[in-house]
Amino acid sequence: MLRRRGIILPAFEIYGGVSGLIDYGPVGASIRRRVVQSWVDHWLSHGDIVEIDSPTVTPETVLIASGHVGEFNDLMTECKSCNSIFRADHLVEEQYPNADSLSAEEIDKLLGNGANCPNCSENTWTPAKPMNLMFSTKIGAMSAGRTAYMRPETAQGMFMLFPALYRHFRQKLPFGAIQTGKGYRNEISPRQGMIRLREFNMAELEYFIDPEKPPADDLNRRTEIVLLVPDPDGPHSGETRMGFGAALDSGIVRHPTVAWFLARTWDFLVNVGIDPERIRFRQHASTEMAHYAEDCWDCEIYGEHGWIECVGIANRTCHDLLSHEKKSNSKGLRAWRQFSVPRSQKIDRLTAIGSVIGPYFRGEAGLVTSALEELSDIPEFFPFKLTLSNGNVVSIDENMVERRKEVVNVSGEWFTPHVIEPAFGIDRIIWHILDHSYQESKKEGEDYTFLRLPEGISSVDCVVLPLFDKDGMGELASEITKAINSLPHRSAEMDSSKSIGRRYARADEIGVPWALTIDHTSLEDGSVTIRRRDDQVQVRAFVDEIISNLLAGTMHSLF
Amino acid sequence: MLRRRGIILPAFEIYGGVSGLIDYGPVGASIRRRVVQSWVDHWLSHGDIVEIDSPTVTPETVLIASGHVGEFNDLMTECKSCNSIFRADHLVEEQYPNADSLSAEEIDKLLGNGANCPNCSENTWTPAKPMNLMFSTKIGAMSAGRTAYMRPETAQGMFMLFPALYRHFRQKLPFGAIQTGKGYRNEISPRQGMIRLREFNMAELEYFIDPEKPPADDLNRRTEIVLLVPDPDGPHSGETRMGFGAALDSGIVRHPTVAWFLARTWDFLVNVGIDPERIRFRQHASTEMAHYAEDCWDCEIYGEHGWIECVGIANRTCHDLLSHEKKSNSKGLRAWRQFSVPRSQKIDRLTAIGSVIGPYFRGEAGLVTSALEELSDIPEFFPFKLTLSNGNVVSIDENMVERRKEVVNVSGEWFTPHVIEPAFGIDRIIWHILDHSYQESKKEGEDYTFLRLPEGISSVDCVVLPLFDKDGMGELASEITKAINSLPHRSAEMDSSKSIGRRYARADEIGVPWALTIDHTSLEDGSVTIRRRDDQVQVRAFVDEIISNLLAGTMHSLF
Repeated sequence: MLRRRGIILPAFEIYGGVSGLIDYGPVGASIRRRVVQSWVDHWLSHGDIVEIDSPTVTPETVLIASGHVGEFNDLMTECKSCNSIFRADHLVEEQYPNADSLSAEEIDKLLGNGANCPNCSENTWTPAKPMNLMFSTKIGAMSAGRTAYMRPETAQGMFMLFPALYRHFRQKLPFGAIQTGKGYRNEISPRQGMIRLREFNMAELEYFIDPEKPPADDLNRRTEIVLLVPDPDGPHSGETRMGFGAALDSGIVRHPTVAWFLARTWDFLVNVGIDPERIRFRQHASTEMAHYAEDCWDCEIYGEHGWIECVGIANRTCHDLLSHEKKSNSKGLRAWRQFSVPRSQKIDRLTAIGSVIGPYFRGEAGLVTSALEELSDIPEFFPFKLTLSNGNVVSIDENMVERRKEVVNVSGEWFTPHVIEPAFGIDRIIWHILDHSYQESKKEGEDYTFLRLPEGISSVDCVVLPLFDKDGMGELASEITKAINSLPHRSAEMDSSKSIGRRYARADEIGVPWALTIDHTSLEDGSVTIRRRDDQVQVRAFVDEIISNLLAGTMHSLF
Repeated sequence: MLRRRGIILPAFEIYGGVSGLIDYGPVGASIRRRVVQSWVDHWLSHGDIVEIDSPTVTPETVLIASGHVGEFNDLMTECKSCNSIFRADHLVEEQYPNADSLSAEEIDKLLGNGANCPNCSENTWTPAKPMNLMFSTKIGAMSAGRTAYMRPETAQGMFMLFPALYRHFRQKLPFGAIQTGKGYRNEISPRQGMIRLREFNMAELEYFIDPEKPPADDLNRRTEIVLLVPDPDGPHSGETRMGFGAALDSGIVRHPTVAWFLARTWDFLVNVGIDPERIRFRQHASTEMAHYAEDCWDCEIYGEHGWIECVGIANRTCHDLLSHEKKSNSKGLRAWRQFSVPRSQKIDRLTAIGSVIGPYFRGEAGLVTSALEELSDIPEFFPFKLTLSNGNVVSIDENMVERRKEVVNVSGEWFTPHVIEPAFGIDRIIWHILDHSYQESKKEGEDYTFLRLPEGISSVDCVVLPLFDKDGMGELASEITKAINSLPHRSAEMDSSKSIGRRYARADEIGVPWALTIDHTSLEDGSVTIRRRDDQVQVRAFVDEIISNLLAGTMHSLF
């Protein structure tokens, strides 16, 4: 159905296709745009979150700092008999459930232990070795070319723009930046259709906070009870059901901002049509979590492939900004924290005596002066060696400097903000929206399917159906279609081929919530029949009523 | 200003930046999203145009068929003295205006003739040679890896999906498909900031038509007079001003659908804030046009860099679909044309005589039969050689076949649709929207700037300004901001730092059309002051009036 109705199709199919690459067809692309727009609106409505947009081609330095060049790997092995290449952990997953956490040595042992080649059934594997999963390319020509990669996530764009964001928000935390767009992961052997793609739609929020004042929302006002799977190694292991407020109060969720974003993730998913009964939040075990993260949750959705991670919500602390600060030497990746009362601080430092340093070091005197100012540990003995910013090492005698110990009042300090990151896999979410809204039934002995998509998510808002294509019904239908299409963010499609029942079925199958039928009475008085997909109830209404209710999202009031 | 206010910034700036890659900051990304959404709405409102979305990573075969692997080149030369690399045509453009149309030999001659290295001033060039401008990468690992490129345009996605589109539109032409997204062009030495990017935002429409029934619109109803620069080698050379209808009637525009799309391009550009006086349509000379194209226009916009091509509108005929049909052997890239009356057609063919062919060719008998059926030129003499679909060649004797000449009635025929393609460079258009809406003036002796962006294009619709941050004004402002942000596709930002005049200036500088000021009276009766950017007139209104007018796009009615 997905392929036949132009929702999702294998990409480049006329050339045999490429696994891990998909097309959104005429119905699917519109659903995709609406899901992404809902996501953007969802976060922008916070008021302290803005959108940014950065390139997908990313120079190597950035991805060295982020750790992707070193660590974004899967273990790979090649069958020596037939030269097929596989992800090593997939070959041994029957022997060991979480095989992706194993080392190369451990996997080699399991491979030898009866994991035969799915292609030729031999057992002659090369040693498992890591393959980086980024698509690699070069910026520029020939000798001037620089290594670059297609971004594996959109997050780095927000870190790169931290200085501009800090300026935009007039130096006040907390604030967030979102980005939607393509991410890339050169899978060795993609499987599971839309779940594991080589090029995918991502949507990420980086929310920058002062760790001493973590922003939170009053979660105890909320009433929903959700399924949680806390850290299996922690004190709360085992599945449990409770509210978001209770999850924070009980210490299961370890950070108030993380708890808030778990709840806001829930809001978004339910709003775009995910069944609340098929959502759960799974906390990473400390062994599974990145070394720098302090609390990390997967929001998983249940569907045809079982529980699938669709959103990750992590407290990444100061890790990312600090790594980029170290690698780039940028001074722009910090925020200023004003103390509520000025604090007194002991200062112990060496100050250069200009009249000695000047003549002695001549051209390098300035460098010596600033190197002395930046010394945090004051050496106990003279002379000592001092490294300058140009790499030269000089020797400092007692007569060149003056030691000052003083107590000063400081009004605040620079610090590296922490970041809470909710990262959404849009294709996986769309897959589950389709899965959860798909409903089969029988009509007059034949299979009949509905897609119960929420309003605002379906590819068009209504279909316009001239009962017959004569007496001007076609023309009126075409006028009404045009009128709806000229409304902001509303759309209609006309369908005049085959029986009216067949046309209803076609619209139900792709989830169009409203069908407008134009008949002889329409030609006389301008009223049309509205049919509601979800209960197939029909009422008559005038076109201008319909248009104003479509615009306001209040079509149900006509029933 | 662009950088300071977070509209457009050099990408990866903390690492020194990469030329040809830009970021849209918090203000610019929102403008970008709104321009793209306007573009999508503009075309979807036609009713016979749908959106699709396809991967950016594109396997090599597709781009061989499209001609990009062979022809998407710039000539490049390297200075033998300092090893700098340059685009060869840029080095000689002072000597020859349209240097990008020159051959390598012609350029080499001009290079030797005094084009010295801009870097070291020597004149020691390597022979100019073509460099392909696509970013190259590999899909998959090691020996299983396939060469691929980042797409140089979005158009191929629509051609790949032609079979799905034809099905979606129930086998009826004309129809169109649009796509927006990233395109890539690995420039040798990018210049001109946002005009020549290595990664850019594209938006393309492929409109598929039956060339015997080219769709058109009644252009003589339109009143605007536009600047045209017809083909310099044609009968209408020289600049001219006329309406779109006259341009078609006079034969300057050679195709009715092309003329229609020139007009619709104009509509879009003016709607998003391009000054109509700074738009012109330039027709390609026959020497400049791709060999397959029949009429090709650049829509150029005038700005800081002179006249810049921002949209290309081309009649690409059946070229693209036919190339893919040849390369892929797909049967799905044609459309059916029903004749108004059935046509009689002479059929002359050889039919296999089963009782002879069967025993003689055994396993290959089926292949022989179909190869005979597909023969269009009937050989005059026997025996003749026949090539089978498996590549084998067999000899056919007179006794194996029967020759039939008959006249049959056929109701229609399969043909390759033609395609009209308007291709938009979104970043260039945004650049010119900013350029045309930027206005400098003086206020109290100081420089003062406005960005006169159209409503719906500015980054937010209004700023909310509490006169003081006390007595609950801040809280009320924050409530109003939230209320506006929860409206569909409307947004507001709160600003409470510094004087009210400073805050107006800040909003004017980035083009926010409305400012709402919350004062003591607001606390009493819920009314606020609305200030209109364009004339700085202020009126008082109630919050719910403002919200309903913002939603309906009728804010001016309050003045």
